[in-house]
Amino acid sequence: MLTHQDNEMLTRTGTGTPMGELFRRFWQPVALSRELPENDGPPIRVQLLGEHLVAFRDTQGRVGLVEPKCPHRGADLFYGRNEECGLRCVFHGWKFDVTGKAVDLPIVPRDSAYHETISIRAYPTREFGEIIWAWLGPKDSVPEVPQLDFGTVSAPHRYVTKKLQECNWAQAIEGALDTSHFSFLHMPAPSVPSNENPDAPADERRLRWIREDPMPRFSILEHDVGFVVGGARRTDSELLYWRSAQFALPSHSTTPSTLPGENHFGYTFVPIDDENCWIYTYVWNPERPLSEEERAHLKGGHGVVAEVDENFRPLRNRSNEYMLNRVEQKTLSFTGVRGVAEQDALVQESMGRIADRTIEHLTTTDAAVVRFRRTMLKQAKDLAAGTEPSAPRHHEGFRLRSGSWMANEGVPFEDVMRERFGDPVGRVIAENETVTK
Amino acid sequence: MLTHQDNEMLTRTGTGTPMGELFRRFWQPVALSRELPENDGPPIRVQLLGEHLVAFRDTQGRVGLVEPKCPHRGADLFYGRNEECGLRCVFHGWKFDVTGKAVDLPIVPRDSAYHETISIRAYPTREFGEIIWAWLGPKDSVPEVPQLDFGTVSAPHRYVTKKLQECNWAQAIEGALDTSHFSFLHMPAPSVPSNENPDAPADERRLRWIREDPMPRFSILEHDVGFVVGGARRTDSELLYWRSAQFALPSHSTTPSTLPGENHFGYTFVPIDDENCWIYTYVWNPERPLSEEERAHLKGGHGVVAEVDENFRPLRNRSNEYMLNRVEQKTLSFTGVRGVAEQDALVQESMGRIADRTIEHLTTTDAAVVRFRRTMLKQAKDLAAGTEPSAPRHHEGFRLRSGSWMANEGVPFEDVMRERFGDPVGRVIAENETVTK
Amino acid sequence: MLTHQDNEMLTRTGTGTPMGELFRRFWQPVALSRELPENDGPPIRVQLLGEHLVAFRDTQGRVGLVEPKCPHRGADLFYGRNEECGLRCVFHGWKFDVTGKAVDLPIVPRDSAYHETISIRAYPTREFGEIIWAWLGPKDSVPEVPQLDFGTVSAPHRYVTKKLQECNWAQAIEGALDTSHFSFLHMPAPSVPSNENPDAPADERRLRWIREDPMPRFSILEHDVGFVVGGARRTDSELLYWRSAQFALPSHSTTPSTLPGENHFGYTFVPIDDENCWIYTYVWNPERPLSEEERAHLKGGHGVVAEVDENFRPLRNRSNEYMLNRVEQKTLSFTGVRGVAEQDALVQESMGRIADRTIEHLTTTDAAVVRFRRTMLKQAKDLAAGTEPSAPRHHEGFRLRSGSWMANEGVPFEDVMRERFGDPVGRVIAENETVTK
Repeated sequence: MLTHQDNEMLTRTGTGTPMGELFRRFWQPVALSRELPENDGPPIRVQLLGEHLVAFRDTQGRVGLVEPKCPHRGADLFYGRNEECGLRCVFHGWKFDVTGKAVDLPIVPRDSAYHETISIRAYPTREFGEIIWAWLGPKDSVPEVPQLDFGTVSAPHRYVTKKLQECNWAQAIEGALDTSHFSFLHMPAPSVPSNENPDAPADERRLRWIREDPMPRFSILEHDVGFVVGGARRTDSELLYWRSAQFALPSHSTTPSTLPGENHFGYTFVPIDDENCWIYTYVWNPERPLSEEERAHLKGGHGVVAEVDENFRPLRNRSNEYMLNRVEQKTLSFTGVRGVAEQDALVQESMGRIADRTIEHLTTTDAAVVRFRRTMLKQAKDLAAGTEPSAPRHHEGFRLRSGSWMANEGVPFEDVMRERFGDPVGRVIAENETVTK
Repeated sequence: MLTHQDNEMLTRTGTGTPMGELFRRFWQPVALSRELPENDGPPIRVQLLGEHLVAFRDTQGRVGLVEPKCPHRGADLFYGRNEECGLRCVFHGWKFDVTGKAVDLPIVPRDSAYHETISIRAYPTREFGEIIWAWLGPKDSVPEVPQLDFGTVSAPHRYVTKKLQECNWAQAIEGALDTSHFSFLHMPAPSVPSNENPDAPADERRLRWIREDPMPRFSILEHDVGFVVGGARRTDSELLYWRSAQFALPSHSTTPSTLPGENHFGYTFVPIDDENCWIYTYVWNPERPLSEEERAHLKGGHGVVAEVDENFRPLRNRSNEYMLNRVEQKTLSFTGVRGVAEQDALVQESMGRIADRTIEHLTTTDAAVVRFRRTMLKQAKDLAAGTEPSAPRHHEGFRLRSGSWMANEGVPFEDVMRERFGDPVGRVIAENETVTK
Repeated sequence: MLTHQDNEMLTRTGTGTPMGELFRRFWQPVALSRELPENDGPPIRVQLLGEHLVAFRDTQGRVGLVEPKCPHRGADLFYGRNEECGLRCVFHGWKFDVTGKAVDLPIVPRDSAYHETISIRAYPTREFGEIIWAWLGPKDSVPEVPQLDFGTVSAPHRYVTKKLQECNWAQAIEGALDTSHFSFLHMPAPSVPSNENPDAPADERRLRWIREDPMPRFSILEHDVGFVVGGARRTDSELLYWRSAQFALPSHSTTPSTLPGENHFGYTFVPIDDENCWIYTYVWNPERPLSEEERAHLKGGHGVVAEVDENFRPLRNRSNEYMLNRVEQKTLSFTGVRGVAEQDALVQESMGRIADRTIEHLTTTDAAVVRFRRTMLKQAKDLAAGTEPSAPRHHEGFRLRSGSWMANEGVPFEDVMRERFGDPVGRVIAENETVTK
């Protein structure tokens, strides 16, 4: 439960808001690299943190991310010609390069100061992990792009996509950090045996443990760029079944089901505006390339990867009630909605465009949600008070993994993580680095 | 004509408004019983007096009407599982019964006070006349459901449906109480003889009398729960042709055309919000069951029963200009729109979402409209000043009929009503009761 | 660049705004005459300067333009019956003639004062050039309809239509007065030779001159009802290639490409509200009737005449990104959008519903745009200060032409105009008049 003021601070990311400023201290996904497939190809519209922008890939392959209004008369540069290292307005031919500088003003007299002074707002970009990232923060100190683990493996080892979600970013990531909801939302219908679950990414035993212990005991460990949360459930034996999930500032997470050798899954939640967000979703396997079969499977929507249309909008969405089937809800799955991704969207969007956190009744299983909010609000308030966040400088610290493990009762969470990942908080230590903590 | 303040008071029925409070002192239709056809079937969304709610029928057939937000994290209970006498949130399994009490909180520690304290807003419901009614008023004194005549006959004697109207409730019921508009809105085109009218529910003579005397003389008689209005028109003989219509608080009415033995028609107007209402529409015949042919006829839309889609929206509606045919307006009917219900919707919706009553020019035939407004405003102001309305306690007083009759000039309206219905204001007196007035 | 205040004044034309008052001192197009093709035919809805109105053609062929609300109960007269010299409300039969006077109130007692006092707002109308014009200004001094040249020729010599544009009127007419944009917006793709331009209404040489000299030198000459602007470009020879365009108050313009003998084109921009306008578009040839082939061509959309649907909305519009084809933008035309009219709409609508003129960077080629704004703002401010505009009284002064011409360097613009049109500012002098200036 938050005060109205804190709920506003948590959820609003427009220019000048405290949370908007915090987001602007971190690189933000702008588009999938494949949305700008060719040099000098069509520009695309982008909306990010409430800002309307145009992205284009220039003759040299560089990605420009600029404000859409031509400074001459305000025509929209989205309709512009992407030609010879610049975007040219179709109205009177004013042309701008990826840095926003005017490089040709054909109707302006040769001696005009305009040739030196005219420019448009432009943000630095990078490509990493098949995603185009932008830096919307202060240009005097631009850090490295966060080295999220999926981006460090070679392309054959990963699959990257995105999906539209029609609600505020914060309630979306809260759904990812709250792993207790697996005991309900993603379960088969109560009448269905655990071995017939159509959706949950787990084998029969794991599924049964999740169903039968809906109140896992949570532990949280902080690290340089966020925290990892682990939940322990009872099993058939003496062992506990641990599931861990990462949170990295400001809006990255990883999922808890991965056992050794299995694929990893992660998300980055990017505010489009305060009522919609993109969920960049990635699947990777550090140990082997994804097979063609897996890849085909993921393209059609599978697990946390939604089945989307050509604009990355889920086919099962709020406008069609997620194609909820009430007969299937009785006989097949807890929700009657197909797809883990779609089930998540259903509950998160059902809270309203911006969830009202003043009327909640939280309980012990909401530990990660509470920690997430506290972390974000503290970071935003600190920044507003003049203290820059330190996480953006730890770009290697974003290389994190999470997943499942079995351990004896009494083993502390950091030891479970160490056993599973070789690090107490799930960091992947590059070979040429030494463990510093 | 009303002041702006009175127009606002008449039309606004949200929580805390004077008229909203008055409406909450009367049972309100929530849905047709057949919208919740089976125990443990799918919940439905309901909007009523501006409140968003969810209705469900539980394992024992009881109807729950509850607020849609789960108190845990705010997920929408509409997506919930309707199982074993309760509605269970799909996010973390919190479950509520028809009284709103939390009956299962699986993720809450056993010793938490939540198990005793958590509940959601829920309204008592009843079923009467194939309609689900809800009580949104003070729970310390819940009256009986109003015994509207259509609901007291057995099911084979009646047909019940509803239609969406895209305007404020008050201008909708004003259309029903103003019976002078029959001389125009529902008439054949002027060039069409009275015996070729495709729509008006009257034989040729009655139709002609209505056409030829557009300025009936109105009389109004008040009774315990509202008033009855009668309009007298000239005929071919010495006799006057009387047509009467009932108004019962806060928004019930009956139609004026019924001659002895013919079917009765009535409406209940229910604010969805201030710009839309449901018109529950019922047809009944106390003397004989409706035939299969009549029933089929009504299902396809007939007279005051609109032709609706599966969501009860009229097929001919504002979005398609009511399929107005200008050729038919010249050659067939006064409006060029098919259906009495649709013609009513056309004029009432054409006034705007909320009619502006500050710029009207009323005349003598608007007597019932004026009385309706005065009655409603007085009741709302009295309640705001602390005086509870008495009508809700007279549940038997809602058993009212109206219709047509022929009488000599000079016969007072109460005598016309007594001749036609055996009661001076059209009450139906149950056999085991005595006339008290 | 304007201040925010001046931008508001320039663009807002609702009742009571300074610019709205100025517009109401000039006759305004309301509809094409063919939208009301027959006496006693269907009424149409009209929106003009923010006012919602209904137009109908009565039994004698006169056009009524009236407010849509019946003064009785506020029903919409659009649904009314157009019968025997009046529009009759379908609710209770109140009937109004083209002057707005109530001519039949069938439900009002004979002795009521209503019969004398009830009326609805109605505006005088005229037909000229196959367009219905209305006078929304003070009724004590109604001038003649402006004698725009296209309206003075006989019907076989002209083609008149209109198109919807989804932005403020002012940025739309600014596009017409700024003839420098021809060097870009309407050009073939740079890779296409000048002789393969699919759109621009000019032969190869003229097209090449426009392409090769994007910075014409502009001259402006004021006249009784506005101004004419001429732009001179270099050619292959010593001669300059002049293109002129007319501006007449408050929102008429003509196009610059016409050489002697060729068709003339002109526009009148009419605010629907502050975010949409109608562009009445006319093609005329004073010297010969338009051929059937030309007429067929224009009906399908050609040059400045858009390809529209049955509601005069362009088929290529903002909702479908103007059917922009990025391959054609590379290989065929500067924009990748088919049609000069559609290219204009694209840039003008792309500025937003109301262009923000506070953030512009104007240059020398924007001379006509600057003069237009200065003229309009001065006229509006003068009127607000009590000085009536004089232009409306010069109805013959609106008979203006513009077009192209070749002239030696050094010849002043007025001499170019005199050579081309026989008048220093392009006026057409009727045969029985003498040149007074």
